[in-house]
Amino acid sequence: MSKRYQKGLEQLRLMNEKSYNTLKANLEDISPDLARFVAEFPYADIYTRENLDLKSREIATVAALTALGTAPLQLKSHIKGAINVGCSKEEIIEVIIQMAVYAGFPAAINGMMIAKEAFEEMDEE
Amino acid sequence: MSKRYQKGLEQLRLMNEKSYNTLKANLEDISPDLARFVAEFPYADIYTRENLDLKSREIATVAALTALGTAPLQLKSHIKGAINVGCSKEEIIEVIIQMAVYAGFPAAINGMMIAKEAFEEMDEE
Amino acid sequence: MSKRYQKGLEQLRLMNEKSYNTLKANLEDISPDLARFVAEFPYADIYTRENLDLKSREIATVAALTALGTAPLQLKSHIKGAINVGCSKEEIIEVIIQMAVYAGFPAAINGMMIAKEAFEEMDEE
Amino acid sequence: MSKRYQKGLEQLRLMNEKSYNTLKANLEDISPDLARFVAEFPYADIYTRENLDLKSREIATVAALTALGTAPLQLKSHIKGAINVGCSKEEIIEVIIQMAVYAGFPAAINGMMIAKEAFEEMDEE
Amino acid sequence: MSKRYQKGLEQLRLMNEKSYNTLKANLEDISPDLARFVAEFPYADIYTRENLDLKSREIATVAALTALGTAPLQLKSHIKGAINVGCSKEEIIEVIIQMAVYAGFPAAINGMMIAKEAFEEMDEE
Amino acid sequence: MSKRYQKGLEQLRLMNEKSYNTLKANLEDISPDLARFVAEFPYADIYTRENLDLKSREIATVAALTALGTAPLQLKSHIKGAINVGCSKEEIIEVIIQMAVYAGFPAAINGMMIAKEAFEEMDEE
Repeated sequence: MSKRYQKGLEQLRLMNEKSYNTLKANLEDISPDLARFVAEFPYADIYTRENLDLKSREIATVAALTALGTAPLQLKSHIKGAINVGCSKEEIIEVIIQMAVYAGFPAAINGMMIAKEAFEEMDEE
Repeated sequence: MSKRYQKGLEQLRLMNEKSYNTLKANLEDISPDLARFVAEFPYADIYTRENLDLKSREIATVAALTALGTAPLQLKSHIKGAINVGCSKEEIIEVIIQMAVYAGFPAAINGMMIAKEAFEEMDEE
Repeated sequence: MSKRYQKGLEQLRLMNEKSYNTLKANLEDISPDLARFVAEFPYADIYTRENLDLKSREIATVAALTALGTAPLQLKSHIKGAINVGCSKEEIIEVIIQMAVYAGFPAAINGMMIAKEAFEEMDEE
Repeated sequence: MSKRYQKGLEQLRLMNEKSYNTLKANLEDISPDLARFVAEFPYADIYTRENLDLKSREIATVAALTALGTAPLQLKSHIKGAINVGCSKEEIIEVIIQMAVYAGFPAAINGMMIAKEAFEEMDEE
Repeated sequence: MSKRYQKGLEQLRLMNEKSYNTLKANLEDISPDLARFVAEFPYADIYTRENLDLKSREIATVAALTALGTAPLQLKSHIKGAINVGCSKEEIIEVIIQMAVYAGFPAAINGMMIAKEAFEEMDEE
Repeated sequence: MSKRYQKGLEQLRLMNEKSYNTLKANLEDISPDLARFVAEFPYADIYTRENLDLKSREIATVAALTALGTAPLQLKSHIKGAINVGCSKEEIIEVIIQMAVYAGFPAAINGMMIAKEAFEEMDEE
């Protein structure tokens, strides 16, 4: 286990360990390397960097994934991650509404329905 | 001039009046209504909302436009807007690097070259 | 209730009230403001404008949503909306086939499967 | 020269022969087959189909290319093509404004600047 | 039945007849022409061309559909098609991992989950 | 200088050192870390992996960047990289034509014009 992988797992513990464990289990049979890269590059190399706090980093990710509209599962994970690092539900809702301006209303509406699911799942847990 | 339009112009004064004036001049002959809608919907209706500070709003916009990769001029304007509402250059650079994870390295590299231009233009002004 | 909101609801009555009511119910707990914006901006500000008839407006929307490929639910709603304002099924099918040229065959095929669902749901109603 | 190619060239004469000739010249050294496919598939197979008039077909194409935001030269050609088959400038402007709803304001603004160029070039000719 | 259609069906027999038959059945009631175009243009006109072997052609298609992220069903069909023309599972996995670089990690992860389904379905058959 | 960075630079020497040096120079003042990540993740971690030859890897990248349509400079670099690792011009042209099927004709045409530039620049060098 590389130092970067360990560092990534530690960072994931702060942010969203549960989603990562699900991902790792899903990829185990087909491509464990891809799961390792997720820990090593985004989490060890990027999310541990200075100059931008984790709340702002998750706001950026929620905004981008809402705008792109092609990764609903990852958007849901990052909405939960955003809550885990201190974003309020209201802040996340605002980020998603704002995406109507930059990616159109369907992107914002679809993002909001995913936020609804994410919040409900977190309330149940 | 509608109340929303006036409210949008006030909000633009706080954020990026100069880019809006350029946009308005460019659209004057062909579609002044589109320029008006920009003031009324994004700036009067959205950017004035509560629950998310303007710095976070510009981080969300810079992230989304970097990830989408189809709006270089608007990305440049919002990088300047982000600086205007209090983001540091370092914070903007971090948002753009992070987009390599969610939209690929070309999106991050292209976003960074636009940030370079935005910073240079602001230094000259 | 703002004048624009009322105007948007009236316009929706002509176009696709049922889809809007579903959307509004879905957003009620999480972001009623986003539902309100849908009535106010697209329906009161845009779809009521002159210079382009509603049939052409729905053709434009069906084309764009088919090409983007990220908003299947909204595409289905607008296919129904297109029928409601006077497009024939044949016209909608032609718009979707044509998108193979501009967004690729998968976009056209996926759009067509959504049209099939939309037509079946309308036949049942 | 296949029958489909001839049929495509005839259709292009009705719609936008000039843009096609430029495309053909540009592709001549590298891939004349791609130019031939453009005449054969979009123009012979698709644009000659029944059940949707050419004005509506160009509205669909202008909408899609504005929303996608990745093909500014082709958007400009089709704005000219739309005029050639009978769309008014005002109709084209409306289609582009409407795309703010489905693909975001930057897509609509960038599309409008391309329309401005297209109209100016047509006025000069 | 046109010569191109017959040629396309022959090519599909080499590549992925089963997926095409499913597509054709799905489109039968709504747009048999779109199914015919799929045989005629991609399969008769493009996949039969010289200068690039079928393995490389399917690698290109799997890469593009993974990166675009909007056509999961077509990606699954082409992963099966890639296997049918001689790609190994390991090669397909590598193509999909590589897309993390050009379209972001969510695109690669979503592509990998589709490959998992494709491989499982092929093992069952 | 990390081992991964060194390994990435060695891989780039095989593939496209010149484009990387340009990128590195462009990013030097604003984000040398992003240039380092390009060497470390795509080139050290991904392009050195087994199970897929470099020619196929560049075919995958050229396909994806042509289909996405948002990274013309990177597409040009990878067309040159594809030539450097043994692809023929004809193979690259075929990959790009094929993208008309999956991402539409404008994506293929725009990709072809970039290939034309790449080939011309390589002939001059």
